[in-house]
Amino acid sequence: MNIPQTSFPRVVIIGGGFAGLAVAKELKNLELQVVLLDKHNYHTFQPLLYQVATGGLEPDSIAFPLRKTINDLENYFFRLTKVIEVLPEKNKVNTTIGTLEYDYLVIATGSETNYFGNKNIEKYGMEMKSIPQSLNIRSLIIENFEEALLETDLEKRKALMNFVIVGGGPTGVELAGALAEMKKGILPKDYPDLDIRTMQINVIQSSNRLLKGMSKKASEKAEDFLIKLGVNVWKNLRVLDYDGLNVKTNGEDQFKAVTLIWAAGVKGATIKGLKEECIIDRPCRFKVDEFSRVNECENIFAIGDVASMESEKYPYGHSMMAQPAIQQGKHLAKNIIKIIENKEIKPFVYKDKGSMATIGRNKAVVDLPNWKFQGVFAWFVWMFVHLFSLIGFRNKAVVFLNWVYNYIRFDRETRLIIRPYKNTLK
Amino acid sequence: MNIPQTSFPRVVIIGGGFAGLAVAKELKNLELQVVLLDKHNYHTFQPLLYQVATGGLEPDSIAFPLRKTINDLENYFFRLTKVIEVLPEKNKVNTTIGTLEYDYLVIATGSETNYFGNKNIEKYGMEMKSIPQSLNIRSLIIENFEEALLETDLEKRKALMNFVIVGGGPTGVELAGALAEMKKGILPKDYPDLDIRTMQINVIQSSNRLLKGMSKKASEKAEDFLIKLGVNVWKNLRVLDYDGLNVKTNGEDQFKAVTLIWAAGVKGATIKGLKEECIIDRPCRFKVDEFSRVNECENIFAIGDVASMESEKYPYGHSMMAQPAIQQGKHLAKNIIKIIENKEIKPFVYKDKGSMATIGRNKAVVDLPNWKFQGVFAWFVWMFVHLFSLIGFRNKAVVFLNWVYNYIRFDRETRLIIRPYKNTLK
Repeated sequence: MNIPQTSFPRVVIIGGGFAGLAVAKELKNLELQVVLLDKHNYHTFQPLLYQVATGGLEPDSIAFPLRKTINDLENYFFRLTKVIEVLPEKNKVNTTIGTLEYDYLVIATGSETNYFGNKNIEKYGMEMKSIPQSLNIRSLIIENFEEALLETDLEKRKALMNFVIVGGGPTGVELAGALAEMKKGILPKDYPDLDIRTMQINVIQSSNRLLKGMSKKASEKAEDFLIKLGVNVWKNLRVLDYDGLNVKTNGEDQFKAVTLIWAAGVKGATIKGLKEECIIDRPCRFKVDEFSRVNECENIFAIGDVASMESEKYPYGHSMMAQPAIQQGKHLAKNIIKIIENKEIKPFVYKDKGSMATIGRNKAVVDLPNWKFQGVFAWFVWMFVHLFSLIGFRNKAVVFLNWVYNYIRFDRETRLIIRPYKNTLK
Repeated sequence: MNIPQTSFPRVVIIGGGFAGLAVAKELKNLELQVVLLDKHNYHTFQPLLYQVATGGLEPDSIAFPLRKTINDLENYFFRLTKVIEVLPEKNKVNTTIGTLEYDYLVIATGSETNYFGNKNIEKYGMEMKSIPQSLNIRSLIIENFEEALLETDLEKRKALMNFVIVGGGPTGVELAGALAEMKKGILPKDYPDLDIRTMQINVIQSSNRLLKGMSKKASEKAEDFLIKLGVNVWKNLRVLDYDGLNVKTNGEDQFKAVTLIWAAGVKGATIKGLKEECIIDRPCRFKVDEFSRVNECENIFAIGDVASMESEKYPYGHSMMAQPAIQQGKHLAKNIIKIIENKEIKPFVYKDKGSMATIGRNKAVVDLPNWKFQGVFAWFVWMFVHLFSLIGFRNKAVVFLNWVYNYIRFDRETRLIIRPYKNTLK
């Protein structure tokens, strides 16, 4: 790995997402060596992936080079690699580029799509957890319409223009809203020789309301917004199987769709090597104590999506979102400093800042701890919060510029097939 | 192909580059049906590809959706396809999505990399004629440094940090300059544990000066700028072969480099089906008369890079750049209108507006017909002209924002490996 051995303790952080970066930034200017590992050389601002997938933002504007986040810090190292396993007895991690010793290990590997074991859906469905995956969806959406134009079989054409989004959480709702806006403002102009009214956008939710994690008012309003945008919202319906065309459900309604986007579940992106007891099945996360320590390991911590810190208030751990990840990261960094300074560490207390989701132009829902509101103002709040949270001035500026342009012009100009997904032009 | 047959004559344009778009835009609001074919769904602003390859611009900011260019025009159609061949006797083209009849055919397929038959260089070298190819170069450059960090064999590390650019035309010069600026401003910060001074940037030119197509003063100054930036300029040297590491030349100097970018030649991207006599070997372009007509065909035209309109003043046709393509496109459109109106068509006269190339920050060379200048002012002129020529307000704004940011911060933030080229993390 070519990382110098110093007399300072070494903190190895796996993952440069919200959680990992929060730890890394907080540890600067200390007598520590920090090694950040990630399989990408950039941080991904996941909350805006759906805008990349629907042509509203360029991928580069929601990615930030990880080396830049640490390149003015002393004794910080970054390595582009995938961690294969942890060897807790040896205080080592095995990676694709060699072995690395650690004094403290921070697992911040985030989450991955949970298909709940369904191999067919995994094979034929699309997922949206990374930038390349979002770009695949972007390509596929446009390729579908280019193909639909040529298709003379009405059934097949309908299937090409039928989009099934499984999962009514923030990802599903935001993606459906963005697709609906494409249907309204862009596709009829781009494909005047296609009857865009036959395009269908379906959101399938297994429980009885959308945005389960939010207030009832937010759920109702989100559903209302989606329906007004022409989205078909299906509740209490479960997708059982998919063969690339036929969507099999547990209800009477079945679908024929070329595109199925699976946003119905995530699970912790756990790493091999730790004892089985460390992992709990809700859903496949590392069980951690109130100090983010992985069960029975004094110097191994897990934070963010991959960690489940169960408490009376949060019996299933915190939700898999940016806020718990950032707060846990910052807190853990302070605790690591305390450990090194032989001070007493403090338990983590989550400060719920609320949650929000946007459905479309002037349409968002916001749940603050003491105030829940929906509509235009919520939409502005949503934009402001997301713009503010983006890393990097350039990214903020490019995203802001795109949003202003898209708002004024009712447009989304990055509807480009830069890397074909189906690769129809062989 | 699903394009309605009308009583209007049909103009089929192959290629949505500078030439093809110039024709298409000029033909609007007439009693014509226009069909634009392209293998991408976007127009590429090729002069800025090198900035995508070196992390200065996002790909989406130099691409523009082709459908948008025509979506408010009546009787205009776009199809995403690759043309296989022309059947001139039948007035038809065969494509990957079916056959299409034409009344007038405009071939504006541009150019592709010319390896002059060298299969090894084609296999191991990189080319930069499209956005995906530029993104491959971007990924490869960064992957090389990530790998160099880990490489303990000094020879191998040197080869990873050795960049050979073959060809001293605008592409080679601009790319070398941009790489040199990465070496100066970004790489030492990103890779403090790597001795970036050992990075080599070589430009190999077969003739005795760079930028052959420009004035002698421009050539000298460009070379001077490159040398000041630390680029090794090799003249009168020819690359003969490459195996992915060893660059074989016809001189005493040989190179060991993991990256070889081939910018030493382009050729017309001709289409099959026309008589052999239509194609001339300088370099593989359609020979056209002063009305852009392909030899012996009354209703087949070729414009831009793929066409060679030989005249006393331009014995080898016009240079393969944006200006001749745009001017030929506009002129051809006017002639097509004249043909339909039974008026006399006019021969094309090229208005040379000059040429320019940028080497780096505050360093460019500009040859106007009556004024040749170099340096800071030339650099501002270069930027202004390129910004002005970009299609789309959003693209202009995003590029401008990036340039201002990069200028003030000495930075290039899109140094992202979004799709790995080597795919080292399997």
